[in-house]
Amino acid sequence: MANAGGSARGPYRSGIRRREQIVNAAARAFTAHGYDGASMRQIAADVGVSPAALLRHFQDKEDLLAAVLEWWARETAALGVGERAGLGGFDDLRALMRYHVEHRGLLELFIRLTGEASNEKHPARAFIQERYAKIVGMLVERLLGVARAGEIPPITQGQAESEIRALCATMDGLEIQWLLDPAMDLVGLFDQHLDHTLERWRRGGYVSSAG
Amino acid sequence: MANAGGSARGPYRSGIRRREQIVNAAARAFTAHGYDGASMRQIAADVGVSPAALLRHFQDKEDLLAAVLEWWARETAALGVGERAGLGGFDDLRALMRYHVEHRGLLELFIRLTGEASNEKHPARAFIQERYAKIVGMLVERLLGVARAGEIPPITQGQAESEIRALCATMDGLEIQWLLDPAMDLVGLFDQHLDHTLERWRRGGYVSSAG
Repeated sequence: MANAGGSARGPYRSGIRRREQIVNAAARAFTAHGYDGASMRQIAADVGVSPAALLRHFQDKEDLLAAVLEWWARETAALGVGERAGLGGFDDLRALMRYHVEHRGLLELFIRLTGEASNEKHPARAFIQERYAKIVGMLVERLLGVARAGEIPPITQGQAESEIRALCATMDGLEIQWLLDPAMDLVGLFDQHLDHTLERWRRGGYVSSAG
Repeated sequence: MANAGGSARGPYRSGIRRREQIVNAAARAFTAHGYDGASMRQIAADVGVSPAALLRHFQDKEDLLAAVLEWWARETAALGVGERAGLGGFDDLRALMRYHVEHRGLLELFIRLTGEASNEKHPARAFIQERYAKIVGMLVERLLGVARAGEIPPITQGQAESEIRALCATMDGLEIQWLLDPAMDLVGLFDQHLDHTLERWRRGGYVSSAG
């Protein structure tokens, strides 16, 4: 909480609460208007503080974006996806989809910032690149470990990377489709897809080994 | 070209050329800053016209967004994806991936606006929803036709929808990964995935029929 202090008007605890209110208001503003479109003045007004008071907590919009990304990473890390060993650990991805359906606003923020971060100059790009690389790397390791343990037939590093990239891609793409068409059964479609993928892995029918 | 005229200073042809310049500048601005972040004043300056002259071509930013979306739909429609009959028609999706790699800016615009359109109030939402529904519907019809023609085993409407939604999701997701990590082999990864999917369809191993 490197930026938690700074307000001389209240005790430390109320500074933390105010900081949380600002981060929440910023997340809503980034979701609704994007990073470039969000206004520090409007975020301050939403929380009921002056722009000058906002700047005592966060020196600029980029600092505020970093705090929103940190908060978002904490929220999703709490789900513990990928921590369970074995092929069964991939079942935790189903919980992630259910979480998205129950927290549509957080998913919207994620998809919006990911879309913005495809621009090389976007301030969230490094964070989202690293987060993506970390998740892909973690799931690739998990899949290689499952093969070493004999739960699935031998798999090469390249095959594991192709499988995990395609699985993550399907998750992101289905999430986008659901945001555009909330009548779609995101959880059911992903469950089907994961059932089929796990069954395919069990018999060693990896994508990059197909003819 | 409902908005093409309006300028009394030059002949009709130069009005069209100016209009095209404005649409191109707007596409660049929406790609770099998003819809909310893009400024009409900056777009006018990029083209070298006054804000008042810009407003003679496009009455507001939403009007300009509509023109950008229309231009983008025309560009991608020219690829003719999905027009070829039979299972081989799906091979045209490979050309779409190669097109993305060669036109990164257009893909960035598409992914950025799609991310923004997950917000229910975004002015591009209806366009992107309709475009998505149209592409999914067209590919589902194509897949059902391929089964009717006996190229693949019988498939239900629900199975076809699951297959096409997952295929489109994988495309979108891989595109996002490539925008974040240009070292990734987008064309190769999608080729592998499509090879495997077509082979799976040929033997009737549909996702929603898996155990």
